[in-house]
Amino acid sequence: MSPKITTELLKQLRQVMKSPRYVQEPVQAYIVPSGDAHQSEYIAPCDCRRAFISGFDGSAGTAIVTEQHAAMWTDGRYFLQAANQMDNNWTLMKMGLKDTPTQEDWLVSVLPEGSKVGVDPSIIPADQWKRMSKVLRSAGHDLVPVKENLIDTIWTDRPQRPCKPLIVLDLNYTGVSWREKIVALRSKMAERKVVWFVVTALDEVAWLFNLRGSDVEYNPVFFAYAVIGMNTIRLFIDGDRMMDPAVREHLQLDSTLEPEFKIQVMPYGSILTELHAVGADLSSKEKVWLSDKASYALTEAIPKAYRYLTPYTPICIAKAVKNALETEGMRRAHIKDAVALCELFNWLEKEVPKGTVTEIIAADKAEEFRSQQKDFVELSFATISSTGPNGAIIHYKPVPETNRTLSVNEIYLLDSGAQYKDGTTDVTRTMHFGTPSAYEKECFTYVLKGHIAVSAAIFPNGTKGHLLDSFARSALWDCGLDYLHGTGHGVGSFLNVHEGPCGISYKTFADEPLEAGMIVSDEPGYYEDGSFGIRIENVVLVIPAETKYNFKNRGSLTFEPLTLVPIQTKMIDVSLLTQKECNWVNDYHQKCREVIGAELERQGRHEALQWLIRETEPLIRVQ
Amino acid sequence: MSPKITTELLKQLRQVMKSPRYVQEPVQAYIVPSGDAHQSEYIAPCDCRRAFISGFDGSAGTAIVTEQHAAMWTDGRYFLQAANQMDNNWTLMKMGLKDTPTQEDWLVSVLPEGSKVGVDPSIIPADQWKRMSKVLRSAGHDLVPVKENLIDTIWTDRPQRPCKPLIVLDLNYTGVSWREKIVALRSKMAERKVVWFVVTALDEVAWLFNLRGSDVEYNPVFFAYAVIGMNTIRLFIDGDRMMDPAVREHLQLDSTLEPEFKIQVMPYGSILTELHAVGADLSSKEKVWLSDKASYALTEAIPKAYRYLTPYTPICIAKAVKNALETEGMRRAHIKDAVALCELFNWLEKEVPKGTVTEIIAADKAEEFRSQQKDFVELSFATISSTGPNGAIIHYKPVPETNRTLSVNEIYLLDSGAQYKDGTTDVTRTMHFGTPSAYEKECFTYVLKGHIAVSAAIFPNGTKGHLLDSFARSALWDCGLDYLHGTGHGVGSFLNVHEGPCGISYKTFADEPLEAGMIVSDEPGYYEDGSFGIRIENVVLVIPAETKYNFKNRGSLTFEPLTLVPIQTKMIDVSLLTQKECNWVNDYHQKCREVIGAELERQGRHEALQWLIRETEPLIRVQ
Repeated sequence: MSPKITTELLKQLRQVMKSPRYVQEPVQAYIVPSGDAHQSEYIAPCDCRRAFISGFDGSAGTAIVTEQHAAMWTDGRYFLQAANQMDNNWTLMKMGLKDTPTQEDWLVSVLPEGSKVGVDPSIIPADQWKRMSKVLRSAGHDLVPVKENLIDTIWTDRPQRPCKPLIVLDLNYTGVSWREKIVALRSKMAERKVVWFVVTALDEVAWLFNLRGSDVEYNPVFFAYAVIGMNTIRLFIDGDRMMDPAVREHLQLDSTLEPEFKIQVMPYGSILTELHAVGADLSSKEKVWLSDKASYALTEAIPKAYRYLTPYTPICIAKAVKNALETEGMRRAHIKDAVALCELFNWLEKEVPKGTVTEIIAADKAEEFRSQQKDFVELSFATISSTGPNGAIIHYKPVPETNRTLSVNEIYLLDSGAQYKDGTTDVTRTMHFGTPSAYEKECFTYVLKGHIAVSAAIFPNGTKGHLLDSFARSALWDCGLDYLHGTGHGVGSFLNVHEGPCGISYKTFADEPLEAGMIVSDEPGYYEDGSFGIRIENVVLVIPAETKYNFKNRGSLTFEPLTLVPIQTKMIDVSLLTQKECNWVNDYHQKCREVIGAELERQGRHEALQWLIRETEPLIRVQ
Repeated sequence: MSPKITTELLKQLRQVMKSPRYVQEPVQAYIVPSGDAHQSEYIAPCDCRRAFISGFDGSAGTAIVTEQHAAMWTDGRYFLQAANQMDNNWTLMKMGLKDTPTQEDWLVSVLPEGSKVGVDPSIIPADQWKRMSKVLRSAGHDLVPVKENLIDTIWTDRPQRPCKPLIVLDLNYTGVSWREKIVALRSKMAERKVVWFVVTALDEVAWLFNLRGSDVEYNPVFFAYAVIGMNTIRLFIDGDRMMDPAVREHLQLDSTLEPEFKIQVMPYGSILTELHAVGADLSSKEKVWLSDKASYALTEAIPKAYRYLTPYTPICIAKAVKNALETEGMRRAHIKDAVALCELFNWLEKEVPKGTVTEIIAADKAEEFRSQQKDFVELSFATISSTGPNGAIIHYKPVPETNRTLSVNEIYLLDSGAQYKDGTTDVTRTMHFGTPSAYEKECFTYVLKGHIAVSAAIFPNGTKGHLLDSFARSALWDCGLDYLHGTGHGVGSFLNVHEGPCGISYKTFADEPLEAGMIVSDEPGYYEDGSFGIRIENVVLVIPAETKYNFKNRGSLTFEPLTLVPIQTKMIDVSLLTQKECNWVNDYHQKCREVIGAELERQGRHEALQWLIRETEPLIRVQ
């Protein structure tokens, strides 16, 4: 893949950074954050400003352009990809490495005295603004809001903001009506003595109203904000989507309703004006609740004394704990997903030796098999279909320039998932279609041991996920190995494949405790640059654990895998497993065989069923 | 133990809280923090204000008295002790439990509108002031500094501040001269563009000047501050201690010295005035470095724009990494300490069955055996000598009212340590002098498995200690058990038994990464209220680990136990150990036998040697 040539673009950007047409005073640096106005991880093409200016299109990264420099901060998943996609104008700042400066420290080190650093206030999260602004100010610089987005001014063919039809989710999928969700939210607001709640994250708006959309690829969300008062519901959304009779009925827009459930529909673009009006109208002791990740512009609309900011909103926390119907939906989605993958792996086993299957073909085939399943909507993220050295690029996505042919000599890593109307999936399997080397098996087995250590972990109620992260690494650490990403993330229910407030990572500390009903991924890995990548990922449900004792009556939790796809036993060095680990694999495969076998049978997929039976033969551990 | 009756004292305190003699305006709440003006954990009797007002004398706790309420916040180690020592005037706030409010939230919930909350500004750390003041302000209250300490005004027989002679440590103990330490500190200051550094923690002053004292029990420190400039050294210290010829020579007070190493000695009480003078004299861009835990009063002396605050000072970080001579000293100290404990346990084994040994007698005997060792100075903390139900009081200290007789029917837990001129020790062993029950052995074995999991852990360079905490709990969690304290703390070198910036605890996140040369404790436990306590503690040294591979050339670390005292094999249920764990115990005991055996031999302690040999017989694991 050749890097994007950005010399001319950077020249233009540096011009507008000094142009009185856009800035009151010239800015000596301009920050281009990754997200959109909702701090989304996956963003619409019109919001891909950082990719436009730099060429780097990974899901996380912040660009900063000064008069002399252009620098990109991203994390371990993207070091290789960013290095490949960016030209020599750019310096890669590898986050998480000891010697990499923070954005603030770097700015302080390169800026001339008394500089102004510009950023779009509607995009930068308030907490980031606060942190940066403080450091910059104490070094004699100023962080300044630049209302017009400077990238947009030089982006001549910038796409339109999408505005696609909505999907109504009925109670069979959601388990709880939007009215009940509003009631629960208002009771949380009352607890905190808050009179308004501003919903800024797209998945939170979608979850609250039991609606889905397709404005953003992979995430079934739509561009909207909501502002909830104790007797008021305002939904900020564009287009004629509210003309759809199904949506009107679902939201009861035409019914005579108690006034506190009457939804006022307003234009998407009016949120800032409306919020300023809310802010101006508050009387003493009235507070407005926002996420501390809401944009600086929205946060500033509420006078400081009236703001109530929290890292996780009550919607984020409620959304994370899946109810019985959502859990059942997730189970169904994972069964269908496993069927598709059994078909795929059976097909790959036959086709790969012919030398005709590329990474892109394999990814397309995976999508094809998934799309045959009931209630399939779309993929839940860009399929990572990678073989050999490409497997070491942690968030690799095959493109024609890098597309490699699968072979019997290289490890193949497939990290993929889908959105079904009943649930979201995300699964990684690492396969070898020939004979893996002893070293590859050794590494795979350490990763598997880590996967099992998390999956089988028993821990007290109230434990935060980050405390489990080291379990996933212990077997790798013992041999001097490790991986540079977290171990797990929350997974939405027909929603974002990455969601808060829980996860399993050494990097977080402010995660909310794990609770029964939460769903996270368990995905340790091992990567050798230029050589191969290994990752084993299941989506797992937090469930109560039965334990021999019960200290302080706290109760215990553990995980139940929702993903039921065989883990390739050919890759396992059984001699490195303990008997307990060996039993875990065998029990897991037994369950795959029973549950997925029955569904393959039902769908008449006999060849895939034979493959499944072969792949779930028990391991035998010689003492 | 009967609680302290505090009705009259609280009445007096509530009077002075309103008295114009002490407060400009009445305060509706008064905070009594745990620490002294140096944020010491162990404090001199004159600083035990929280114990004076409440009766609770554990090492951690904050009291808040309002017109209606008196509440005490403390952590899991002290729940039982605090409940026993306080009368009905007090409400115990159990920190770490889900429903316990923070001090700020509690204040907001009980205070009348627009209240003033008073605190002694020379005692409250600046970071706590900031956090509390922010929450209180946003709820309409005010945190106000009350210059005269209100407890002191009602404490009629308050002891004098101690002022004991100093101990000079020569290069054989410290490895590095105070001049070299000043040079290193100034180079860290130059790196951060700082012109003054204020040393506020007592152990940091002691470490910097290679001096020790005995102003505070257990911690070999002395009351002093230091202010280091690029060409100036000011030591704030009282009494005639600077008249001691050994001290004068050590600090070269009478030599003609380069001016940048000339120490100006000033009265202890003049620090605030001097710091105000420093603050007033700064020119633009000159910064003053303080710990963010320095008192609010000292921090305020430096205008905000000139402050450079960090959670850990460069002295704290340098002090944590022990040099070769310090490490050797720590090894020697631990060998002597083990000799004393072998003598003790051999003695206990004979004496306990007679029914004449109480917790206090056992603690005294431990001190007696330690005091026979070379360079013994004092104990490093109050000996926790506890049997049966007393063992469940995590930081128990036997007093006549609670003193229990050791017997062959109850578990005995001894957590003790000493200050030797060459090092500091801290060791816990849990013993049974009769026949432990299957359940006691089971619990002991889970704790042992946790101890081994940490001690034998291999982890990458740069790993923070808190990432290892779950390893210590995993075996307990599997059975629904846990313990409500951290797993380890940094240990000083003939200095404080608890020191930063590293540790092993789920509670911290801002700890500094572990480095070779750091020394921490490894002390998981299990406690059943009203029944027994188990803890197994070694002090361990961070050392480089040899691993099969070396990911990203990061290198790996592991631990080497410095404590070499047998772990009672009678308490181990061998069937619960893996072969690896069994080998760890046998290797450890082999090393105890060799190293401590040789020293017992050298000291002619033949009976204790026989005991050691018997107690270090290898475990045999039947498959």
